[in-house]
Amino acid sequence: MLKAIKIVLVGTSHPGNIGGVARAMKNMGLAELCLVAPRGKFPHQDAAFRSAGAIDILEQAKIYDCLEDAVADCTLVAGSSARSRHLPWPLLNPRELAGRLEQELAHTEHRIALVFGREDRGLSNEELHLCHLHVHIPCNPDFSSLNLAAAVQVLTYELRMAVLATQEKQAMPEAQHFGTEWDVPFANSETLEHFFNHLEHTLIDINFHNPDKPRQLMSRLRRLYMRARPDTIEVNMLRGILTLTQQAANKNAATKPPESN
Amino acid sequence: MLKAIKIVLVGTSHPGNIGGVARAMKNMGLAELCLVAPRGKFPHQDAAFRSAGAIDILEQAKIYDCLEDAVADCTLVAGSSARSRHLPWPLLNPRELAGRLEQELAHTEHRIALVFGREDRGLSNEELHLCHLHVHIPCNPDFSSLNLAAAVQVLTYELRMAVLATQEKQAMPEAQHFGTEWDVPFANSETLEHFFNHLEHTLIDINFHNPDKPRQLMSRLRRLYMRARPDTIEVNMLRGILTLTQQAANKNAATKPPESN
Repeated sequence: MLKAIKIVLVGTSHPGNIGGVARAMKNMGLAELCLVAPRGKFPHQDAAFRSAGAIDILEQAKIYDCLEDAVADCTLVAGSSARSRHLPWPLLNPRELAGRLEQELAHTEHRIALVFGREDRGLSNEELHLCHLHVHIPCNPDFSSLNLAAAVQVLTYELRMAVLATQEKQAMPEAQHFGTEWDVPFANSETLEHFFNHLEHTLIDINFHNPDKPRQLMSRLRRLYMRARPDTIEVNMLRGILTLTQQAANKNAATKPPESN
Repeated sequence: MLKAIKIVLVGTSHPGNIGGVARAMKNMGLAELCLVAPRGKFPHQDAAFRSAGAIDILEQAKIYDCLEDAVADCTLVAGSSARSRHLPWPLLNPRELAGRLEQELAHTEHRIALVFGREDRGLSNEELHLCHLHVHIPCNPDFSSLNLAAAVQVLTYELRMAVLATQEKQAMPEAQHFGTEWDVPFANSETLEHFFNHLEHTLIDINFHNPDKPRQLMSRLRRLYMRARPDTIEVNMLRGILTLTQQAANKNAATKPPESN
């Protein structure tokens, strides 16, 4: 199960921290590291030194230009976040996240990304809105900035504890959270981004949405659908609705007299 | 409760690691650091740098010649240890240790020491035998050496989680699942039924839905939105979208030639 989880570091400044993260990952049995636009040089000797032998993880690390690409194949994206944000978003602590692991990885196609932001200012709001949920380590409110590798250590420790607990109870029957097994894989981030893009264009077509005066509309809709975690059939269904909505709007527009002639 | 717990580092080589430990401690709300025969120079600028502002903990750190003195006032001494030792000793994982915290600190006079060994070879057998019990972080057996600060981070995180759980039990405050309080009431069933009714009519209007051949469509959409638990603002937003979709569809229909004349 731990092999289905990738660690994504966004805009990391210090190569040493990347090495510390690789070490923490390998300690806990994870293998896949993705770097989004690292600000320091990479590869770097500080990374190799701090990894204390987790060189394989550094060598196989994938580098991306933007977070969207790094999580494109993931069915659950969890972003590390401070507690308060202007738009409330589902927020778990590491243990609550780990508690969902077994269910999340019930499908072999499912993949999870844990996303960690910059050392100095974390993830941007836009990046946080690419996440299904946010994870917060409940630290001392007067001294709340964890070292990057330390944060990864805590999260991956919780995931490992959950996996060990799952292995321990393997003889016992699976908990059924949906009455029966969910029979369709969840949509991955790429599919969801296409959907959100389609949704936004459709809302413009029906004059509901004005990108110049967004009023948090797309953020709110994104939050709603991210909470629901649509599966692939559901996304197809929603996009079918959008396509017919656009047809209706555009036929309608075509019959209108041109606005200026 | 966290103030009754001290972290004891034995024979630490790298001052930077002492700083990393101080940071981890302060992140989790601990304050008391003891150093037993540190092998590097202390105080040291590397320690100050890695502490990232937890200077107060470094400045107040006490230095001892031997572990016995450092833990003299403690009623429970827990030593960090690899799994296998020649003489079996009570061995807990960090969560099991944290689970005992409340009971251990039931007396105000009780004090706990968490003891961590040298970066390269841990605690000696003699030192381990000064402990009431041993704690082992269940890491990857093929790559089991955690960074010292990372090990302290995991242990102190577990202790903090236990203390927060105890406090929640005592005060029963509201659970904060969304970073801040969800600021809008969830839609009630009546509101949701109106929405689903509106949705179904709209889907008929855009020719997506044929009530004579329902194909589980409304059931699937219902399941999707029920999972998301829309709040009242979100339902208003969705209904606004439906209204404009219907306007687009109906204007369009109005311009079509009547089907039978």
